Order: sequence, then structure tokens, then C-alpha cells
Amino acid sequence: MAMQERAVRTRRIFLEAAAQVFIEYGYEAASISTILERTKLTRGALYFHFTSKEGLARGVLDEAVTTEGLTPQAFKVQEWVDVGMLLAYRLPREPLLGASLALSVDPAARALFGTRWPDWIELGRGLLAEAKERGEIHQHIEPMVAARLVVGAWTGVRLVSGALEELDLVGEISELYGLLLPNLVVPGVLARLDTSMYRAERLLRAAREARGARDDEEEFLVGDDRRMPVR
Amino acid sequence: MAMQERAVRTRRIFLEAAAQVFIEYGYEAASISTILERTKLTRGALYFHFTSKEGLARGVLDEAVTTEGLTPQAFKVQEWVDVGMLLAYRLPREPLLGASLALSVDPAARALFGTRWPDWIELGRGLLAEAKERGEIHQHIEPMVAARLVVGAWTGVRLVSGALEELDLVGEISELYGLLLPNLVVPGVLARLDTSMYRAERLLRAAREARGARDDEEEFLVGDDRRMPVR
Repeated sequence: MAMQERAVRTRRIFLEAAAQVFIEYGYEAASISTILERTKLTRGALYFHFTSKEGLARGVLDEAVTTEGLTPQAFKVQEWVDVGMLLAYRLPREPLLGASLALSVDPAARALFGTRWPDWIELGRGLLAEAKERGEIHQHIEPMVAARLVVGAWTGVRLVSGALEELDLVGEISELYGLLLPNLVVPGVLARLDTSMYRAERLLRAAREARGARDDEEEFLVGDDRRMPVR
Repeated sequence: MAMQERAVRTRRIFLEAAAQVFIEYGYEAASISTILERTKLTRGALYFHFTSKEGLARGVLDEAVTTEGLTPQAFKVQEWVDVGMLLAYRLPREPLLGASLALSVDPAARALFGTRWPDWIELGRGLLAEAKERGEIHQHIEPMVAARLVVGAWTGVRLVSGALEELDLVGEISELYGLLLPNLVVPGVLARLDTSMYRAERLLRAAREARGARDDEEEFLVGDDRRMPVR
């Protein structure tokens, strides 16, 4: 493994451990020692990447707005729905995403770092504005207002369904879109949208397979290079 | 002031101070000393009512599910909307309500005390079930699911609009209902629902005036009693 690649992986291990600790303890009660214990790496390795708990929290928040799995669709409004469905699938599985939400709802952390909500809202607003231009959503819908409300609604459905433990987030978010979309989307487009519970997993698998294929090609090239005799 | 009434007011002062401190610092970082400082009352008076920070938090949560201002309406679904609109008006103005939400989203506090979300959901479910029986909402709507999603959506819109400081909660919640109701409510009823921003304030003023009138009568009776000569 190349030096730089190893550094990237080590940094990621620290971020994920920090994320898990932020989720379990909250930002205030999280300690560097607890984070370090989970990684089985040295304090020196940690300080090479992050000099403080604040740095770790900023690192977590930097990774939070992600469109992995999002691919171009016939309807822009489908892409907007996909953002929310993909996140519903990924958040319970990826500590970095869960921790970003935890830091956003924690008043102490929010005062220090702000939230990524404005970025999520801007992502949604852009997609809805394009959808509106194409006539996919009703003309009376204000993309900024709808994007903001849905970021809020998504966040709260996550919090409440997380507290009522037996609920699956993908199912709840799918129900939420079922309630919201008929007021946003014109009927002809609405009938052709996919808001099913299985969509996100399918999109993500496709994206990861496509990326895996690319990674394998790169790996092969690297291997070839290594085999070149030094003359 | 009668002894008991004074005790009720003192208890309330402690609860409201605790609520403000929970909102500002979060549950973990909140201290009994900080709470006490804000009341200008003695530690003895506090311990007469509450023996711990846990007790104060439980006291705050006990007050959280409130239907003040809610009055019978021609449509049950209007009463359901009124619950959300009244809370949107009151929460930013009443620390006990804001603190209850803050305790619910705080992982440490939630682990200790749970949340009041199940009670809000049950309140909504009951109203929606009646609305459904009366044919006010669509037959395919499941009252439990809709009540749960709207408690979630309401909570998240509060959190996000609170973080984007310039936003008024009543306006945002009114927009949220504008997006949700056309999918829930049958057209004939929908056209007669009031989701305006001014509704909550008006309902609450009417309820408080009605209560004020009753309180005055009681005050008068108490006064009369006092004026009775001891013979």
C-alpha cells in the first residue's frame, strides 16, 4: 500500500471512531482517549492527523454532505427524491453520517461548528429549481421553501424514528415522500417516480460496482507498474 | 397568596429556570448551581421541590404535552392541525416546551428519561382516527403513520428553522401543513381548514381570556371568603 493511501485510511479510521463516540456520548462527553481506544492506534498517529476533538468534529462534518449513489435520472425530481432515499439507507449504516446529524442537533457542537443543513438545502433547492424549469413540479412550489421543509422533515423523522427503536428509516422516509410528493409533483411525472424502499440499496450497489470496476482497473495498472523491472 | 399556591409558583420558577439552562447548555453541562442562580431563591427552597437535576428534567418533561388553546372545532382534522400550530406559536415563547424538545434530542437525556414523542403521536393518532371516521381525511391514510410522520416532520422543521436563525417557526409550520394537508384531507374539508399564521395566537388569546374570566371569578370567591368575619 502506498504511503499516501495508508495515511488516508488511517485518517478515516480516526474519523469513524470519533463519529461512533460522538453518536454514543454526545460531543461534550466524548473524549480523545475513548476515541483512541477504539482505533488501537497510537496517540502520535492521531495527532499527525487531528490535533483536537474540534478537528475531529470538523472532519466528520466535512464528510457529511455526500451524493454517493446519485446518478442522472430522466426526471430531476427523481434525483431530488434519491438524495433523501440514499441518505436514509446510508445514515444508519455509516457512523460519519449519523455523527454529522448528532453534532447538528447538539447545541454545544452547533454553536462551535454550525450545521451542514444549509448545504443539504442548497443541494435540494438546485435540483428542485431544475425540476421546476422542466415542468416536473407545480409552478406554485418555491424550490427554496420545499427544499428547506423537506430537509427539516427528513431530519425530524430520523430523530423520532430513531427514538421509537423498532422503525426502519428507509421505510419511514419512503412514507414521508408518499405524503409530500403528490403536492409537489405534476401528476404525469408523479406516476413515474420510484419511492420504493428498495431503490436506495439498488442505486448504491450499482454505483459501488461501477466504482469497484474502475478501482480494479487502477489496481491492475499499479500492479503492472510494480512489476516493471528496475534497470 | 395561599401557602399551596405559593408552593406551586415556586416550583414553576425552578422548572422554568431549569428549562432555560437545559436549552442553553444541554442536559450534561447544565448544573444545579446555574439553575439556582437564575431564580434568586435558596437551595433549601429548591430541594423542597426537587432533589436532583434528574428530578428537574422529569418535571420539565411532565409539562411538555399540552393542549392549551385547543378548543372543539367543526372538523377534527382542524383540531389536529391546531395542536401543531399552537405548539409552533408557544414553543419559542415557553422555555418548558423548548427544553422538552432539547432533552428529547439529547442522547444522554433521552437515555435517562425517554421522550414525549409517543404521547404527541398518540394525541395526533386519536384526532386523525376520529377525522377518518367522519370522512374528513382520505380512507387510505393510516392515522398512526400520518401522526408519527408529522410529529417527526414538525420536530425537524423546528430544529432546522431554529438553526437558520431568521426563520419564524409559525410560518414554517404553516408552510409544512400547506405541503402535507392536500394529501391527507378530502377536498371539501381542505377548502375550509384554517392553517394561517395568525390562527394559533388568536386561539390562545381566546383560551386565556376565557380562563382569565374564570380565574377572576374564583379570585372573587376567595376574596369573599377572606372577608368573612371570624366569629
